[in-house]
Amino acid sequence: MDNIRVTVWGEYRHEKKNPKVAEVYPQGMHNAIAEGLKAHGFSSVRTATLDEPEHGLTEEVLNNTDVLTWWGHTAHDDVQDAIVERVRQRVWDGMGLIVLHSGHFSKIFKALMGTSCDLKWREADERERIWVVEPGHPIAKGLPEAFELDQEEMYGERFDIPAPDTLVLLSWFQGGEVFRSGCCYTRGKGRIFYFRPGHETYPTYFNPLVRQVIANGVNWVYQPASPKVVFGNAKPREVLPQAK
Amino acid sequence: MDNIRVTVWGEYRHEKKNPKVAEVYPQGMHNAIAEGLKAHGFSSVRTATLDEPEHGLTEEVLNNTDVLTWWGHTAHDDVQDAIVERVRQRVWDGMGLIVLHSGHFSKIFKALMGTSCDLKWREADERERIWVVEPGHPIAKGLPEAFELDQEEMYGERFDIPAPDTLVLLSWFQGGEVFRSGCCYTRGKGRIFYFRPGHETYPTYFNPLVRQVIANGVNWVYQPASPKVVFGNAKPREVLPQAK
Amino acid sequence: MDNIRVTVWGEYRHEKKNPKVAEVYPQGMHNAIAEGLKAHGFSSVRTATLDEPEHGLTEEVLNNTDVLTWWGHTAHDDVQDAIVERVRQRVWDGMGLIVLHSGHFSKIFKALMGTSCDLKWREADERERIWVVEPGHPIAKGLPEAFELDQEEMYGERFDIPAPDTLVLLSWFQGGEVFRSGCCYTRGKGRIFYFRPGHETYPTYFNPLVRQVIANGVNWVYQPASPKVVFGNAKPREVLPQAK
Amino acid sequence: MDNIRVTVWGEYRHEKKNPKVAEVYPQGMHNAIAEGLKAHGFSSVRTATLDEPEHGLTEEVLNNTDVLTWWGHTAHDDVQDAIVERVRQRVWDGMGLIVLHSGHFSKIFKALMGTSCDLKWREADERERIWVVEPGHPIAKGLPEAFELDQEEMYGERFDIPAPDTLVLLSWFQGGEVFRSGCCYTRGKGRIFYFRPGHETYPTYFNPLVRQVIANGVNWVYQPASPKVVFGNAKPREVLPQAK
Repeated sequence: MDNIRVTVWGEYRHEKKNPKVAEVYPQGMHNAIAEGLKAHGFSSVRTATLDEPEHGLTEEVLNNTDVLTWWGHTAHDDVQDAIVERVRQRVWDGMGLIVLHSGHFSKIFKALMGTSCDLKWREADERERIWVVEPGHPIAKGLPEAFELDQEEMYGERFDIPAPDTLVLLSWFQGGEVFRSGCCYTRGKGRIFYFRPGHETYPTYFNPLVRQVIANGVNWVYQPASPKVVFGNAKPREVLPQAK
Repeated sequence: MDNIRVTVWGEYRHEKKNPKVAEVYPQGMHNAIAEGLKAHGFSSVRTATLDEPEHGLTEEVLNNTDVLTWWGHTAHDDVQDAIVERVRQRVWDGMGLIVLHSGHFSKIFKALMGTSCDLKWREADERERIWVVEPGHPIAKGLPEAFELDQEEMYGERFDIPAPDTLVLLSWFQGGEVFRSGCCYTRGKGRIFYFRPGHETYPTYFNPLVRQVIANGVNWVYQPASPKVVFGNAKPREVLPQAK
Repeated sequence: MDNIRVTVWGEYRHEKKNPKVAEVYPQGMHNAIAEGLKAHGFSSVRTATLDEPEHGLTEEVLNNTDVLTWWGHTAHDDVQDAIVERVRQRVWDGMGLIVLHSGHFSKIFKALMGTSCDLKWREADERERIWVVEPGHPIAKGLPEAFELDQEEMYGERFDIPAPDTLVLLSWFQGGEVFRSGCCYTRGKGRIFYFRPGHETYPTYFNPLVRQVIANGVNWVYQPASPKVVFGNAKPREVLPQAK
Repeated sequence: MDNIRVTVWGEYRHEKKNPKVAEVYPQGMHNAIAEGLKAHGFSSVRTATLDEPEHGLTEEVLNNTDVLTWWGHTAHDDVQDAIVERVRQRVWDGMGLIVLHSGHFSKIFKALMGTSCDLKWREADERERIWVVEPGHPIAKGLPEAFELDQEEMYGERFDIPAPDTLVLLSWFQGGEVFRSGCCYTRGKGRIFYFRPGHETYPTYFNPLVRQVIANGVNWVYQPASPKVVFGNAKPREVLPQAK
């Protein structure tokens, strides 16, 4: 875990415009997420934000990133297509990606899913209860079988995603909705984990169990050493090298 | 659909012992389920119950059954192992199976799943809201995106099943639980659909949307003409027959 | 089946430029595929090709198409992005899509998969043996447990696709490769079936078993009546309408 | 990895009766497998065999086993049902299980899968080529994209298993068959990995890439700290404990 290089990407716009958000996240949401990871023992955590050059996601940064986390909401369209393609290529090459909350509508998530990624939502300070449905999965490590967030934005089904390879968490909302809140995918050689909670006006990313899930997610999406894959025209009847 | 031969199996014990159940289902739960299927156009629907010889599931009956539905609760242990194996073999050979509500703990469901099939439950007259999470699936045909049952028994996660091949329905309960309520599997050549609602003290199997789901389920699990599979010692380098 | 409205889309360029292809498919590959469907009882089958206005895929055509089949190879880049988006939206809304052979690299397939869809290939007149691994699936209906194509282009793994929701067919190639040849997906409310065989220089689309698979595929991807899904801001604690 | 406690279970009958097998595996197949794991850095590896009391799988042994590997062939029926149930319960509780080659027909594998687990086979000294189809999966770590075994028993589809949660490896055989050779499952809280190669008359378990796959498998099935799950009658509207 020590040597997983994590880049926490944050849109970092709400915090500068909305006093309520600034009060909850005075250092920005990305720094709260990064702090949570450091507290879980990740020593190589950097941040990047939308308004930096190349959104902070230069070739060099991405080439030195094992796992990228993504939170965006109000400015998905401001993310340049070329950077989205760069991130997608890195995921295909094996970089892990964690998409948080409103990141469901980010260009990168939609490009990797191939669906609209639309959903129901409501801002009504509702209680959310998150259930572990796959307790044997590494992302459930150290969790109780359910935990609550006193106030969150509601996200409800139909969540227009491809059926997850593994569904780990399900949310219950006070107002009558359910949601697939912890969803695992593989695209190319990269693993992707979508995790629902994290509306900007609530202190969700300070919650210890939310932080536990994100830390577990980083460990799960990290893949150090996968086979080199060769595409294209293949030699006929090649004899493969013997193992030594 | 007309020629799908359905056998509705009911334990038929509660109805004879519990006046409350008898009042809700004067003809037995199995006949309520069978009527619902007939109302959806299935013309070949018979019933079978626990206390008949061979539980009504003779070789002849099963050989003439395309789809079997199963409701049991209080007497799972009274079902003979030999009959369970007979049913399981027929599922492997392609017969469809629909397991209803407390049938989650039936011998046949556990034998096909390979897990404990345990869950949380509570009898508290709670409201259940059932959400369609896979609207493109045939089992969702003709449903609204969600529907409610005013009073049902609660079933809650962790539901100890293998992850469904397809998860079609999710339940929300008033008391704070969620449940994977519509689960699709294939075992051998047979399809299996588990559908949650149906506690014996509520008129659930008269509900038109519940009946719609069960009818959709019968159509989905029905598989008329799958390839003959040969197991065992295979001839070397056999040349397969050419298509005509 | 009678009322499924199928549109068979063909690139229709090889046939006009390569005499070998013209000899095998004098009416074009799309017409060979369409004929195969008609022979299986589909009465509403039309064709559309790249060089027609809007590639033959006008709003009106797509709105009257239940299932679209797609074969392209040499001119994927000539397909306009706006038409690709139009097709993708229709798939999300429930139209079925069958992607054939080199269509793995089409814009529409890549947009729906979210991966590179790359693979290994070789043109060496190799024997292909296609095995049914999921005999209980409707796409296997009427097939033998395996069948052969005497000569085909080889496609080999790694096929860079999301893990299929259901893997129905696997190919073996003479030269030492394997391939996931029959892959089922759902994206939005639409079903997608990828089917491997069909290199332009071989009479593959006249093969009766290949035609059987495509006909089965059309029946499987067709979804007539799925729930209307509402996205966006949801009313709090709405009471759902009771079933009548 | 250091602290994963592995028990390698071997039937250990062929080696005592068949001189050819004894020549290939003079210490028994189980010891060859155990040595391979030790060479990959697992320091806590013990063995157990059929003819020991309780087949070497006492409550104490299983309670101190994180991962169990299973090779059996000629004496599946000699394994006591009570021990099979004991192992299954431990898998449900989170113990990892690796089932090797002819273990596909073991009581424990069939009990966990719920299917017949039947397949095609042929002993003809055929070449097997194993392809990685999911290169981003931990079980593919350190492998080339394909590798060969010069001589193995053939196993061919239809392999009558539930569709794997993840399919990692596919085999190609000289004689024309394919096989799903690396299959991942979760049952209860336990992970299961089925890996095909390992006929008793070939030195397969000395092959460095086969040993790599088994070592990767041990790491993958190992799950240290999953949530405690409570089944049964649930209190109404319980308020969950807040995270500290």
